[in-house]
Amino acid sequence: MSSGGSDLDGRLFGDPEVAVHFSDQARLQAMLDVEAALAESEAELGLVPRECVTAIRTAARATLYDRAELGAEAAQQGNVAIPLIRHLTKHVAAADPQSARYVHWGATSQDVIDTALVLQLRAAVPQLLAHIARAAGHGARLARAHAATVMAGRTWLQQATPTTFGLKAAGWVDALDRQHAAVTAALNTAAVLQFGGASGTLAALGDRGPAVAERLAAALGLANPDLPWHAHRDRLVHLGCALGVACGVLGKIARDIALLAQTEVGEVRDGRGGGSSTMPHKQNPVGASVALAASLRAPGLVASLLAAMPQEHERGLGGWQAEWSTLPELVMVTAGAARAIADTLETLTVDAARMRENLQRTRGLILAEAVTMALAGRIGKADAHARVEEASRRAVRDQISLGDALAEDPEVMRYMGRDELERRLAPEEYLGAARTFVERVLSRRGDGR
Amino acid sequence: MSSGGSDLDGRLFGDPEVAVHFSDQARLQAMLDVEAALAESEAELGLVPRECVTAIRTAARATLYDRAELGAEAAQQGNVAIPLIRHLTKHVAAADPQSARYVHWGATSQDVIDTALVLQLRAAVPQLLAHIARAAGHGARLARAHAATVMAGRTWLQQATPTTFGLKAAGWVDALDRQHAAVTAALNTAAVLQFGGASGTLAALGDRGPAVAERLAAALGLANPDLPWHAHRDRLVHLGCALGVACGVLGKIARDIALLAQTEVGEVRDGRGGGSSTMPHKQNPVGASVALAASLRAPGLVASLLAAMPQEHERGLGGWQAEWSTLPELVMVTAGAARAIADTLETLTVDAARMRENLQRTRGLILAEAVTMALAGRIGKADAHARVEEASRRAVRDQISLGDALAEDPEVMRYMGRDELERRLAPEEYLGAARTFVERVLSRRGDGR
Amino acid sequence: MSSGGSDLDGRLFGDPEVAVHFSDQARLQAMLDVEAALAESEAELGLVPRECVTAIRTAARATLYDRAELGAEAAQQGNVAIPLIRHLTKHVAAADPQSARYVHWGATSQDVIDTALVLQLRAAVPQLLAHIARAAGHGARLARAHAATVMAGRTWLQQATPTTFGLKAAGWVDALDRQHAAVTAALNTAAVLQFGGASGTLAALGDRGPAVAERLAAALGLANPDLPWHAHRDRLVHLGCALGVACGVLGKIARDIALLAQTEVGEVRDGRGGGSSTMPHKQNPVGASVALAASLRAPGLVASLLAAMPQEHERGLGGWQAEWSTLPELVMVTAGAARAIADTLETLTVDAARMRENLQRTRGLILAEAVTMALAGRIGKADAHARVEEASRRAVRDQISLGDALAEDPEVMRYMGRDELERRLAPEEYLGAARTFVERVLSRRGDGR
Amino acid sequence: MSSGGSDLDGRLFGDPEVAVHFSDQARLQAMLDVEAALAESEAELGLVPRECVTAIRTAARATLYDRAELGAEAAQQGNVAIPLIRHLTKHVAAADPQSARYVHWGATSQDVIDTALVLQLRAAVPQLLAHIARAAGHGARLARAHAATVMAGRTWLQQATPTTFGLKAAGWVDALDRQHAAVTAALNTAAVLQFGGASGTLAALGDRGPAVAERLAAALGLANPDLPWHAHRDRLVHLGCALGVACGVLGKIARDIALLAQTEVGEVRDGRGGGSSTMPHKQNPVGASVALAASLRAPGLVASLLAAMPQEHERGLGGWQAEWSTLPELVMVTAGAARAIADTLETLTVDAARMRENLQRTRGLILAEAVTMALAGRIGKADAHARVEEASRRAVRDQISLGDALAEDPEVMRYMGRDELERRLAPEEYLGAARTFVERVLSRRGDGR
Repeated sequence: MSSGGSDLDGRLFGDPEVAVHFSDQARLQAMLDVEAALAESEAELGLVPRECVTAIRTAARATLYDRAELGAEAAQQGNVAIPLIRHLTKHVAAADPQSARYVHWGATSQDVIDTALVLQLRAAVPQLLAHIARAAGHGARLARAHAATVMAGRTWLQQATPTTFGLKAAGWVDALDRQHAAVTAALNTAAVLQFGGASGTLAALGDRGPAVAERLAAALGLANPDLPWHAHRDRLVHLGCALGVACGVLGKIARDIALLAQTEVGEVRDGRGGGSSTMPHKQNPVGASVALAASLRAPGLVASLLAAMPQEHERGLGGWQAEWSTLPELVMVTAGAARAIADTLETLTVDAARMRENLQRTRGLILAEAVTMALAGRIGKADAHARVEEASRRAVRDQISLGDALAEDPEVMRYMGRDELERRLAPEEYLGAARTFVERVLSRRGDGR
Repeated sequence: MSSGGSDLDGRLFGDPEVAVHFSDQARLQAMLDVEAALAESEAELGLVPRECVTAIRTAARATLYDRAELGAEAAQQGNVAIPLIRHLTKHVAAADPQSARYVHWGATSQDVIDTALVLQLRAAVPQLLAHIARAAGHGARLARAHAATVMAGRTWLQQATPTTFGLKAAGWVDALDRQHAAVTAALNTAAVLQFGGASGTLAALGDRGPAVAERLAAALGLANPDLPWHAHRDRLVHLGCALGVACGVLGKIARDIALLAQTEVGEVRDGRGGGSSTMPHKQNPVGASVALAASLRAPGLVASLLAAMPQEHERGLGGWQAEWSTLPELVMVTAGAARAIADTLETLTVDAARMRENLQRTRGLILAEAVTMALAGRIGKADAHARVEEASRRAVRDQISLGDALAEDPEVMRYMGRDELERRLAPEEYLGAARTFVERVLSRRGDGR
Repeated sequence: MSSGGSDLDGRLFGDPEVAVHFSDQARLQAMLDVEAALAESEAELGLVPRECVTAIRTAARATLYDRAELGAEAAQQGNVAIPLIRHLTKHVAAADPQSARYVHWGATSQDVIDTALVLQLRAAVPQLLAHIARAAGHGARLARAHAATVMAGRTWLQQATPTTFGLKAAGWVDALDRQHAAVTAALNTAAVLQFGGASGTLAALGDRGPAVAERLAAALGLANPDLPWHAHRDRLVHLGCALGVACGVLGKIARDIALLAQTEVGEVRDGRGGGSSTMPHKQNPVGASVALAASLRAPGLVASLLAAMPQEHERGLGGWQAEWSTLPELVMVTAGAARAIADTLETLTVDAARMRENLQRTRGLILAEAVTMALAGRIGKADAHARVEEASRRAVRDQISLGDALAEDPEVMRYMGRDELERRLAPEEYLGAARTFVERVLSRRGDGR
Repeated sequence: MSSGGSDLDGRLFGDPEVAVHFSDQARLQAMLDVEAALAESEAELGLVPRECVTAIRTAARATLYDRAELGAEAAQQGNVAIPLIRHLTKHVAAADPQSARYVHWGATSQDVIDTALVLQLRAAVPQLLAHIARAAGHGARLARAHAATVMAGRTWLQQATPTTFGLKAAGWVDALDRQHAAVTAALNTAAVLQFGGASGTLAALGDRGPAVAERLAAALGLANPDLPWHAHRDRLVHLGCALGVACGVLGKIARDIALLAQTEVGEVRDGRGGGSSTMPHKQNPVGASVALAASLRAPGLVASLLAAMPQEHERGLGGWQAEWSTLPELVMVTAGAARAIADTLETLTVDAARMRENLQRTRGLILAEAVTMALAGRIGKADAHARVEEASRRAVRDQISLGDALAEDPEVMRYMGRDELERRLAPEEYLGAARTFVERVLSRRGDGR
């Protein structure tokens, strides 16, 4: 059971407002919308009688159809469009036998299935984009608020040199903004009509195929491609890739938050953290777990889309079918992750005092580079490195601070007074361009000062 | 919407009898079964009062619980077990306040979720195995029936030398049998209890943890592992891998069938082939498309399971959650593929005449090797190769048969009479060990003669 | 051994002119180029003495360094930049001890490794793009030449309705052109400097970090990002995705060619086809096998890049390292596939006579839709469908042509004379918009008439 | 450039003693070994003259062949076996023209390539298994030594309840032992001869094919399968899966170590930790980064193997080729990870004092469950939970210990004296079955007491 289809997991891992666009009902309706728009476009061009438009429109309501029956027939015929068109034709025939003959005129089942999917994506993806935008907005607020909040920069999961929480948040925002743009662009590129008939020539419409395509695309608000793309799936797969990368970015933010929220670190806290059935004191970073899970599932889903690309001839077998549940699942997974991170960032509690406290854990070792660089200008980088390294070793061995260890070295003290030494060891003095970087991100969004 | 959760696609791509084990209802029931068995085991050991068993058993019916409500709470708390246990406790308390305190005694939510998943797998996977066995059975019947049906062997999608349809089918059976054994073994290995409490020590049960675990495993018919495996997922992932490989084998069979069923080849035909909405003469290999789609999706699903393995410490965040929909989806996808191939092989129409006809397409070139090998024993392999290659070129250029081209070569005719040449060019004379190989597979299954 | 690193497989699966950019030598040189440009940029800003630039430039030649030694030290220290910088410093010190202190001034090893990778990509990817462009060019030539060459359109690997080889080729070109644009755009987006120092603040450069970054980016011809991206890999992964989609498109073309080249189809032939060690008559579609292999490997490589994205804090552990061989391998695999398809299309032999011959295989059934649509305008689509379906069944049963079967139906003959019937059954009369679609693609490229 | 093929990365990410088996040289030699053993087996059966055995054996030395030349020809012909056999034949012919005709007698190029790969795997994988065994051995030593070393159990990256480092290490060992067995079993299953000739019938050997196969398998020490498996790759893919799961387990251990080694946690330290180019005090967990990188790459590599499985007919195109670099790369990646974890565990420094210190971080909250369970037996679980939860809240709010908070609650004190309370809050008193679990793992390995 996918996250989208489960009452139990759907709200945890997905987003009901996105999932609704991929329900069986929504899928049928999208296919019926395509059929109705097709009849309309063809009527406007005089290819089918005007009367049939009303008959088809009237029958084009998903609730009229028995999903289990359609599913059973789909299992025989290979896709759900074939029985749907048959039942639609019956419905139309019951109201107006003349019109029944014009149902699905000139189209093939893949035209309907693909265009319906594109319509579903166009409805669903913007909601996911809104979550990404919301996440970026909360991230920007945090970046602004904490532009001067010093914390340990960490590399290899070891404290390295100081940074600010503002810069960390600005990095998140920067990446989220890029994904918002990338997914938007990919959605726009993918929002194209599929309309080619049996083998992609629109032969059943004689020489009127391109005219119908143009009108149909306009009616559905989609772009009209230069030619049908039944076995060329790159536009959809590019969208899938953009979603996959977005999950990666959301997973990175989630990982940072989960690590910062560790009991031993305690620098942030998920304000909405989940409880434990047995441990009353815990507050689990539920949002981070959702986004991390998404970042673990998305690569496999993207791989499935890519693997399905080499589709045979005019319309393939197997590859196309592999997309049907994969791409919607990817949208739902990404939506769930984006919502989770947006909610998490919205309620994130930041403990600046704990950040500063953790900076002291190494008794100044984290500022070894600061002293090294200051000394390097005077005694050369190699010598500076060697002296600081030696002092660091003493500091660790004797469990004293790096400042005290350095103060014991006359060579160091010759070039640097105790005052300067102290200043060099103050993390807020060793932040380089952190603020500049934060400002760049914020001002690009119009959030700058 | 996954194949399992959709009325429209579920019967096409999955198997309702498998999917039912992964419905929300089945999942809740499996969790409740674990809770009931836990109370029972603990009562037997005197850890909880006997009376509470009845109260918990009575409340342990999935239909008592509101799935939407559970889902909404799961979204807050990170998994559905937490609210389920709370609601279960309420139900028990309504009947017997004393018993309520013993609900979920000593367990953690992951114990319940993991063990429930194992129970669901144990119920679902055998049905999938039955499909694989059925496919292998039909394959064996075909291998027996067509042990002497000559057809073109094809490599690089080019006709190579003759083979038999029996050998091709025997190769399918051989691989299916191996996957049946491998999935069975992996399921057995994975059918272990999860029971460790909050951090995997069963500390809440004092020194009685292992005794409870033993009884609980016995009650559920599961193996009792040496220690809890909350963050060690290899057994489940091995099962996922075995399913993935099975999908690969099913996809290989599907590809063979789809290729043999091509209009231009026409050697087999899916007896249940799907129709086309626009082309009355077509019979689409629907079963093959289902299995090929599965073989394209499974690698990504397996990759997700593998990627989720490095789970943090005693119980991770993100990795575990990524499995929840992935492994059931993989079971359903494999079940759908196995069912599709079993059905396809059951109704496969084999056109032996067409097979022989296609063997003539190259005007004997496909038997070039046969002549080469026969000549090689007399004039050396290199010379034999050169003469046959030269004759092949003439045959292609002059559009004559290889037999005629060879007959024009006096050097060839010196070593080989026209009669022998004809015999060498008869495909049924150049089948080597094909029958032996078929017999080996069949007799291993007790199908041999 | 990757395709790039193997003498045996490198020329088959890759492209030596691309692989050369990812050799150990090229990698070292790219890192050394970054170090030299860094010194230069800092000298221009007065941060390091001008003299050290020459000393560093002189030592920045990859051939000066022992790769095995560097590799042994990398195994201890976690990446090759650390020992390389140490050895570079030694080399500089030997020439000018004063300059040695300014080697790698203010940078971290990831700055050097990432920027070097970006430089390698910028050198390698355009060669791959040239292959895609060449493939598209040959495809366009084929589309132009065969705009009127009728052939069977095939769906589900069954003949459906007629199409033209020109339209098939135009579909390839259309998709190749999109991938050329997408990879180009992704490369441009990814061509950014990495420069952040230990924790991404450039603290070691005081307030001069951004100025150095700007100059360094200019010196290397890269864009200067708003902030360092050590743990934000989305730009590189987007490039990887674009390569993966390109492999999918190349795989689709390869699959079409391999299927058309089947002995039983014989509509195209790889002019450079490989021989067989045992079958003198075969010509294997080697180029197609290379591109199909790439399309099977690329999804996994892309999945690895995506999975590696959630990197910890300021610089992660594990995720970054997972990219090092994956992204170059993906470039090489794509290059090999693009080269293979370009070469294959360049030398592709198209057998128009065979295409027409294969169109007759179904004795007119492939044109059932054409007759159906023509009849539908007169007797309604449902009736038309029914009559043609019935005639198709008779044609199959009695092994007569569809034309003869339809001629036996007085109802059909009432609405359609034998002449019209014949015309309706001529494939070149049922091509719809095929030529229009071809022209659109060609004229967009300036190839139109 | 793959890790195996690079001097710079090969020692960091791979294992030279494993990589050597996948060098171009080793690959050629393995193919030549197959050719020599084939001649020998056929000579024993009288199919080829005895004299040719010596001639072929003499020419079957990889150093005799020009790899670049072979690679160039492979690029034309589709695989390296074709030119290799041609050059081998030339070499034999130079020594003994008569024998030249018997080179490669009855085999096809895939027989040679596949069997050679199996021989390479059989040589390489045991070295990887030795690393896994070594890792498990060091893990067992740690489990024994630290069976009583209390530390925080962590779930969701939050401290949960106490555990022991011994139990954590035992969990690693348990999983490593399972993977050692699984990879061994998969290697044994995969160690089968490939020998089928052009289309898998061994037709070129008349009725002697099976006899040759039997002898050849014996000569190479491989199992003789019931039939050739050219297009059935499941045995190799199962091995690939086993390697993938092993990488997952190694990645889990690596993640635990990397997290425990965090500056803020500091409970273990990689004794061989890599230095930083700019931060003298850091010791980076290099081994963990290698194994985590492997665990991120392996899923994609396994996905490629799975995706390549549906190979066409008797021998496919594309799928087979996709395996060639993927499976060796997977072996090398796994070997590197196993070596890295073995080395890391060998030199791991465990800081038991720090573990105990970190247990105090929550001021007793981590033992909330212990008190809850003790109280539950007296006042019911729900009440117990509520009282402890309330005390936990007070403890957090007032920054007092849980012990002090509980002592303020008269209801609690009524059932539990201060002494018992203290005991309940001692982590070593709340370890449940931790020691039992450790003993089970150790005694299963014969390490128990």
